[in-house]
Amino acid sequence: MKAIAVEPGAGEPVLVDRPRPEPDVGEALVRTLRVGVDGTDHEVIAGNHGDVPANEDQLVLGHEAVGVVEDPNGTALEVGQVVVPTVRRWPDGTDNEYFERGEPDMAPDGEYVERGIAGAHGFMAEYFTSPEEYLVPIPDDLAPLGFLVEPISISEKGIEHAVAARSAFEWNPDSALVLGNGSLGLLTLAMFEEVLEIDRTYCLGRRDRPDPTIDVVEKLGATYVDSRETPVPEIPAAYEAVDIVYEATGYPRHAFETVDVLAPNGVGILLGVPEPWEFDVDGGRLHREMVLHNKALVGSVNSHRGHFEAAVDTLAQLPDWFTDDLVTGVYDVSEFESAFDTGDDVVKTAVEFDRI
Amino acid sequence: MKAIAVEPGAGEPVLVDRPRPEPDVGEALVRTLRVGVDGTDHEVIAGNHGDVPANEDQLVLGHEAVGVVEDPNGTALEVGQVVVPTVRRWPDGTDNEYFERGEPDMAPDGEYVERGIAGAHGFMAEYFTSPEEYLVPIPDDLAPLGFLVEPISISEKGIEHAVAARSAFEWNPDSALVLGNGSLGLLTLAMFEEVLEIDRTYCLGRRDRPDPTIDVVEKLGATYVDSRETPVPEIPAAYEAVDIVYEATGYPRHAFETVDVLAPNGVGILLGVPEPWEFDVDGGRLHREMVLHNKALVGSVNSHRGHFEAAVDTLAQLPDWFTDDLVTGVYDVSEFESAFDTGDDVVKTAVEFDRI
Repeated sequence: MKAIAVEPGAGEPVLVDRPRPEPDVGEALVRTLRVGVDGTDHEVIAGNHGDVPANEDQLVLGHEAVGVVEDPNGTALEVGQVVVPTVRRWPDGTDNEYFERGEPDMAPDGEYVERGIAGAHGFMAEYFTSPEEYLVPIPDDLAPLGFLVEPISISEKGIEHAVAARSAFEWNPDSALVLGNGSLGLLTLAMFEEVLEIDRTYCLGRRDRPDPTIDVVEKLGATYVDSRETPVPEIPAAYEAVDIVYEATGYPRHAFETVDVLAPNGVGILLGVPEPWEFDVDGGRLHREMVLHNKALVGSVNSHRGHFEAAVDTLAQLPDWFTDDLVTGVYDVSEFESAFDTGDDVVKTAVEFDRI
Repeated sequence: MKAIAVEPGAGEPVLVDRPRPEPDVGEALVRTLRVGVDGTDHEVIAGNHGDVPANEDQLVLGHEAVGVVEDPNGTALEVGQVVVPTVRRWPDGTDNEYFERGEPDMAPDGEYVERGIAGAHGFMAEYFTSPEEYLVPIPDDLAPLGFLVEPISISEKGIEHAVAARSAFEWNPDSALVLGNGSLGLLTLAMFEEVLEIDRTYCLGRRDRPDPTIDVVEKLGATYVDSRETPVPEIPAAYEAVDIVYEATGYPRHAFETVDVLAPNGVGILLGVPEPWEFDVDGGRLHREMVLHNKALVGSVNSHRGHFEAAVDTLAQLPDWFTDDLVTGVYDVSEFESAFDTGDDVVKTAVEFDRI
């Protein structure tokens, strides 16, 4: 079968031929429909993140997938059922407490592999297998956009942890700032606007108009903030201090600037994965700010089945115009290279392996 | 009546004579028993924190008080009832949403004053008045130690917010590190050991043996970590990464080092109030650490009535030897200066105005 793989660091993905996988006991065989491309894929391709499976020299890419069950193989799934796979699996066939309680997203290093990212092949292939418990059914009509469930689930988790961090008191957020106008930033902005109904939302980028992401930001009713004109620490003076900051840039100064832009009792969600980088901060002021104004920062990675299920509901609530504008390209596997192109007119892309 | 006041920045507290206060409607008159002294008092005395009430040039000190109701003045309190006052009050007689819902600790700047600290006289006087709702009854037998309820309440809140921040997943902390071996650090260490029954606890200080605080740390069953031998970032290698860090030093590098010393899924509680101070951090690594290991930081200030009530229960559970060792001096108001002395043999002191 066809698959899209990389040798990490080789610089670009290639089409390879691999044997169709055989499901083990408890696993179903899934025929792949579409697989999304995101920043993590580009990091993996560049060799900055992730690693190939043990004893292999290639990694099949793809962690944002949707497919249909081809062979339930004795599981409770049904032939033709549309499913989205979660990403983390236990390493070396060894279960552990995090997986046992359905929270693989909280497993520490060494206690998981990530399909398409670290230590396990991904879903960019005509077929894949997965244990039943890691296949989340979705309605048939969401199948074309099913590859958005995984990225939405990342924000479902981040927001869940942020809300939990503010659950010891009465907290009614009415403003939110998304740092980053990539696809994850825009999806999260849409969640804040359309699903969580946050009154006032802002999205930070560094692009000139006309730009398709700025158009989406404004169509959502959010305010676009150009970081070249209004750096993050100046946002409270130029607009307002906000109750929630969602950091989706991986630019580490943003993690610290988040403290300054938060309103009292606010929470910052950190999602990016930067490289080491030393710089100066006014650590005294940041520390004091966090304390005197009861601020919180939560780091969040990956997501579990519950977040995927919540993401399915969220996806169903996003307006059609938004997903139409967000998904700028779905490419047949024969022209998969286009799905990895970057550029100012690219927002979100996917590779299509098959149709229902 | 006698009161202990400061002109901020004057360098030392003085005994003053003030009129005995008259309770307003809804307020009771309380006869003061004991008032504790803490680091915040020393900050106020030094002029680094807090301010005098509007149109006054002196501030009566004291925010850790216990007293007995002298005149219920029509409230539901009873004559002779032992009570501990909370600290925040609405400013200028103006209520606001934070006070209305019983969460004055979450009020932002300008929406509160703090008795004995900022904008309102404290409790270091023979009598004080307070609205009934800010007087927390405690059992008579706890009266001699009632001045510990306020500092314990600070940790009740910090720990409540930290636990909330980890409530979106299954979290069973079994190790904790307290940064700072002052009285608040030791009280919190005792809470971790004796009340929350955390398996392994550590307390960081920078003192030589023999030292009374190191003795308390070790008698509690905790491990004393000398920061001169083992700086915070080396604690994971020397001992272990911990599930909870409680920062009670106000040393801002600790706020950042907390991220490194936390185990995956851990939470750091920031309590100190440092001055501005710029320094270099590896912001990229700290950001990445928070994300990839789901770490959280929560700042926490002040506490509300519910935290005081929890603190009363906690105080009742602390062993007698601990509070005996913690409280190194209770001084009659005639020798109040001694309560403000600092030195390696001083842990926690209080001024005694009267006995039951």
